[in-house]
Formats: sequence, C-alpha cells, structure tokens
Amino acid sequence: MSNQIYFTPGPAQTFYSFEQHLKNALREDVPSISHRSIEFQKIFQFTTEKLKELLNIPEQFNIYFTGSANEIWERIAQNLIINSSHHLVNGSFSKKFYDIAKAYQLDSTIEEVSLGNPFSLSIPIETELIALTQNETSIGFNFPENEISSIFECKNDHTLLAVDAVSCTPSVNLDFNLIDTAYFSVQKGFGLPAGLGVWLVNEKCHEKAIQKQSLGHSIGSYHSLPTLKKFADKHQTPETPNVLAIYLLGKVAQDMLYRGAKQIQNDTLYKSTIIHQAFEEMDWVDPFIKQSKYRSRTVAVGELKGISSSDVISKMKEKKFVLGSGYGSFKESHIRIANFPTHSKEQTELLVDTLKTL
Amino acid sequence: MSNQIYFTPGPAQTFYSFEQHLKNALREDVPSISHRSIEFQKIFQFTTEKLKELLNIPEQFNIYFTGSANEIWERIAQNLIINSSHHLVNGSFSKKFYDIAKAYQLDSTIEEVSLGNPFSLSIPIETELIALTQNETSIGFNFPENEISSIFECKNDHTLLAVDAVSCTPSVNLDFNLIDTAYFSVQKGFGLPAGLGVWLVNEKCHEKAIQKQSLGHSIGSYHSLPTLKKFADKHQTPETPNVLAIYLLGKVAQDMLYRGAKQIQNDTLYKSTIIHQAFEEMDWVDPFIKQSKYRSRTVAVGELKGISSSDVISKMKEKKFVLGSGYGSFKESHIRIANFPTHSKEQTELLVDTLKTL
Repeated sequence: MSNQIYFTPGPAQTFYSFEQHLKNALREDVPSISHRSIEFQKIFQFTTEKLKELLNIPEQFNIYFTGSANEIWERIAQNLIINSSHHLVNGSFSKKFYDIAKAYQLDSTIEEVSLGNPFSLSIPIETELIALTQNETSIGFNFPENEISSIFECKNDHTLLAVDAVSCTPSVNLDFNLIDTAYFSVQKGFGLPAGLGVWLVNEKCHEKAIQKQSLGHSIGSYHSLPTLKKFADKHQTPETPNVLAIYLLGKVAQDMLYRGAKQIQNDTLYKSTIIHQAFEEMDWVDPFIKQSKYRSRTVAVGELKGISSSDVISKMKEKKFVLGSGYGSFKESHIRIANFPTHSKEQTELLVDTLKTL
Repeated sequence: MSNQIYFTPGPAQTFYSFEQHLKNALREDVPSISHRSIEFQKIFQFTTEKLKELLNIPEQFNIYFTGSANEIWERIAQNLIINSSHHLVNGSFSKKFYDIAKAYQLDSTIEEVSLGNPFSLSIPIETELIALTQNETSIGFNFPENEISSIFECKNDHTLLAVDAVSCTPSVNLDFNLIDTAYFSVQKGFGLPAGLGVWLVNEKCHEKAIQKQSLGHSIGSYHSLPTLKKFADKHQTPETPNVLAIYLLGKVAQDMLYRGAKQIQNDTLYKSTIIHQAFEEMDWVDPFIKQSKYRSRTVAVGELKGISSSDVISKMKEKKFVLGSGYGSFKESHIRIANFPTHSKEQTELLVDTLKTL
C-alpha cells in the first residue's frame, strides 16, 4: 500500500485489516477451493451471519451475492416489479435505477427533485415498489430515517420498499422492519476491492418473485430470487462467485463487530460533522446540501468557490490525501470526501486541518 | 499458500505469478483507485490488449467484463437472440446455457446427445445463434476444431456462432474467424480467484443487439452490448467492476505471452496425453471419453472401477494433490483432473506417478 490515504467515495481506502485477511486467505487457499466444498459453505455461512449481526438484519431476511450493485438494480426490476415501481430521484445513482427499470420496459414512475431538495413523498397508490437512495453518493444527500418511516407508514401493505444502501452501510443505521429489500457493494463502507454486490431480501420479496413468474413473466435465470434462495439455503451460490470477496467481507464484518455498529455510527457522525463544519468555516467551499439533516454522513460534498476540484485534489494529493472530484457535471465544481469506517477520527481531523491550510 | 497442488477443474491452482502480481497491485493501490480514473483506463487497455495478443483475437472484436460466465449466458440470451438459439448439449454446462435461454422465454432448440457421444450437427436453418461448448467441463468432452469449422461452413451467414471457452482458454487454440462470440472465466486456465467473466464479441453481435432493441425488445441495461461498448470505447466499464481481477488478468496474460500461446497449447497436449495414458494403463480407472479426439485437453475425466472418488481424492490429498470429484450424478464414480497452464509438466508427471502408486 502506498502512503496515501484515499478519501474517495469508493473505491476507497481499504479497511485497516484487509491486507492481513488477504494474506490469511492465500494461506488457506481460498482462491483455489471449490465453491461446492464444505470450506466454501462455511465461508458463506460465516459472512452472512456476521452481516446479519452487524447490520441487525432480522432472521427472515436472506443475503445474496451478485457482481455489483448495478446488477441488483436489474434483479429487482426482473424479480420484484410486474408493472411499475416509483423512484425518488435526486442524483445520478437514484436516476440510474429508474433508467434500469425503464430498460426492462416497466411502466415506472419518478419523483425527481432538483438536487439537494427534499421529496414531497407523494407515492402513487398502485406502485409495487418504492425505490429510495439512503445516501445519494453523487451529491452527498442523506435520506433521513424519519422520512423512511413516513413512507413505510403511508404505503400500501403490498408495496415493497427498496433502499439503496450502497454507500451508507454499515455507517448509518437502517431499520429493517421498515424495509423489504436493501443492497450495497463492498468497495464503500467495507473498504474492500470492488467486485461484489450484497442483496438483502425478505420473505415478501420471494413471494413477489414467485407471483411474477407464475403469471408467465421471465424473472431471469441463475440470479432469480428462487434460484438464489435454493442455493443460499445450502450456503452456496448458483454460479462460481467471488469467493475471495465473500471471505474478506465476513472477516471485515467480524472486525467491525468487535468495535460495534453503534460505535462505528457514532464515529461516522462525529467525522461527518467536523468535515461539514470545515466546509462552513472555509472561504473557498460550502456544503452543497444546505439543510444539515439532508447532509450525507458518509460522503461530504463541498461546492467550490473560485477554485476547481482539480486544484484542490492536486494540492491535497501532495499532502498524501486523495479526495474525490464532483460527480458528472459537477466534476470541477464539487469535491467529495468519503467518511467510511476505515477512516479514523485522527486521520479525519488531520484531513480537516490540512484542508484549512490550503 | 499451502503446500497442496490443486488439480481441481476450477477454481484451481493459482497461476505461479499470481501472488507477486497481487502484492504489486496492493503497492499500487489498485483496490482503491477510481474506476473512472486514467489509472483504471490504463489497466483496462493493458488487459484487453494482452488478451487480444495472447488469444489471437481479431482487431474488430471487443472484450467486456462481467461477474461470471453465467452472466454472459444471460447477456447472450438478452442481446443476441430474438426468437431462438440452437444448443449442442452433452453435459451440465452446455445444458445450463439452454436452460437460461428458456428462462428468458426464447423458443430455443436443443440437440442433446448421450454423454461422451459426438453430435450429428444438424442445425435448424432458421436459428439465430448456435451455442457450443468447446470444453464440457462436467464430463471432459473436447469439441474438435474441424467440427467447429464444419458448423461454420454449413450455417447461414446471419447465424451467430457462440463458443463456451470457459475451461479451455488459453490452453486450446480457437479460430476467431469462425466465431462471433466466445467467453471464459478467470478461475480456470488463468489461475486467478473467481469473480470475473470475459466476453468476446464481434461487430455482428453488436448489430444484432441493436436490431433486437430497435424491434422493441429489452436487451437489459448496464450490461447490454451498446452500453458495454460505449464504456469500453473509453477503456471503462458501466459499473464499478472487479478492478483487481482485471489488473491481475492482464499481468497473467503478459506472463503467458513470454512463454507463448503455442508453447502453452503444446504443453497442454503433452500433459493431457500422459494423464489419459495413465487412465488407460491403470486397473481402477478408464478415460470416460472413449474416442481420443473428443477427450478434453484441460479437464481429464476418469471413470472409476471398484473405488469411489472420495477414496481416490482422500488418498491423493495425503500426498498433497487435490483432485476434483465427478460432476453432479457422477460425483462418486468419476474423478476430474485439471490441466491448466499453471500446472507444470513436472508437477503433472509427479501426479501421474503418484496416481500409479495408489
């Protein structure tokens, strides 16, 4: 590893214990073992159990592995929506899910708000699935817990609630009693190399997939929910998966449990607060999201004044801090700073102090 | 790494230079770099160029990355087939592709021959895509080059030829002038951890996907051919991919180029011959495939007589050789021995000598 610290919004700095677990994995021949062996089944079971414990996921949820979170958007479109979903869109990632639903020729609806503004939360009564993004990585927007509760309370019983938790897991607490499906990838909060998506689904999702299939619709193949479940019930995956990533995820989740999810979430809040305070104090940058309750706790986005992101990034890189540029059209006018569990309070304090010397 | 040698048919023994490249990748922060950075674009370009050189892939082919070869079966069903494909099936893996086409509600046809027997090669005239498996890993069947040529010569111009090259790449030469699309995964011949599929497609495939879409069919979303091409044209992927695996694949392909594909293929033939000869000479095992031209060069399958695969496997494991059991219903009655580029001639000779002492 170089001596730089990656505060990029993912792929990001690897988790502090990643290299040690990787060494152990090689010693244990994890890249060579069969995905139909008992050794693999133990890895699968260990990782899913540690994730359930860390994220406080109810017993009736299943955990499945995919190639990416993009793939999970597709699998939701294929398995959980017959006619239409409703998408709360306020940035590039929430918009991508809507685009995928449309690419699967669903009659999906959208509430698109200008960036950084809250949603009106008027949900079409007939929608089958509501899609929201807990942490919109592109602009650093946080979907507050009480607004997720409001959606849960006003929606129909048959409507599924899908939460994009890609860049907030495990740093933000999610109440899985409100949620039917959530998903994340491992190169954000877990500080692992990219190449694994994690899909959490409850029993209602399985029922919906079976209903869709029984009506004569295709729900995909090796990664349809019934097929994923058939294999997961024996701690396996339908295809040869990214075994190494599943192993590493379990080990990192175990390390996080030693610290505790609550402590990680408290630390996240502290670090997020000092980054946003710095944005407020400095002349050349403002927090992009104005209302603090809507500010992401894991990806702080700063709107630049009189300086470009390339300038800020290159100055910070000289000091060994790697920051993210703005997303899409904001490439030059925003900076993005990740705040994941591997970023210590001390590193973040040093980052903030360094920003103030620019 | 333990002191065992994995002769399992994949995941298998890692390539001899894998650990060194992994160390370099960590030193270069490969797990942390952005998939939108120039560093990643260079990795993507390096890997696709080395693969094209190693596998002698014509310039007009594109190389795309997916989560697995299973995913590529789906992407072919979504992008390259409007009504029907024709599947030459003689084992579990060729059958899986047919099942996936049916799960996508295609009107696909099948020629299924009893295991180990050759195909009649009578292809329905109207089929849009012919699917064959160069190396049927489940039973160790090799699809001879001259039979691939025969299919090419008798098929219609508009019919695409898809070759499953999962467990034969780069050990068996494929003539890409005959093929429209081929695919493999990295945990077989490349000796890398599982979690990456590689999809090779020519211009005719792109035209077919656009035709299918223009007729109003869904061709998927982030991994549709037009989307993959849009990103690959700038050396990128639509989603955050398995960056580390793409990096490692390029480095291993480069190492293989130092040796040369021809040399690897000659060595493969030599090692395959001595394993099959041993099967013929020993009392307790016969080659499962009787005609030598149909015997896989990369996965030798032995039919056991009076001994179970668990017995053979456990005796060989004591001597540090890890062999594969039979596939599916052949679990106890077959052994499978991989013969990939990382298995040296000396290791394979030692394996054969050890088998003879059982």
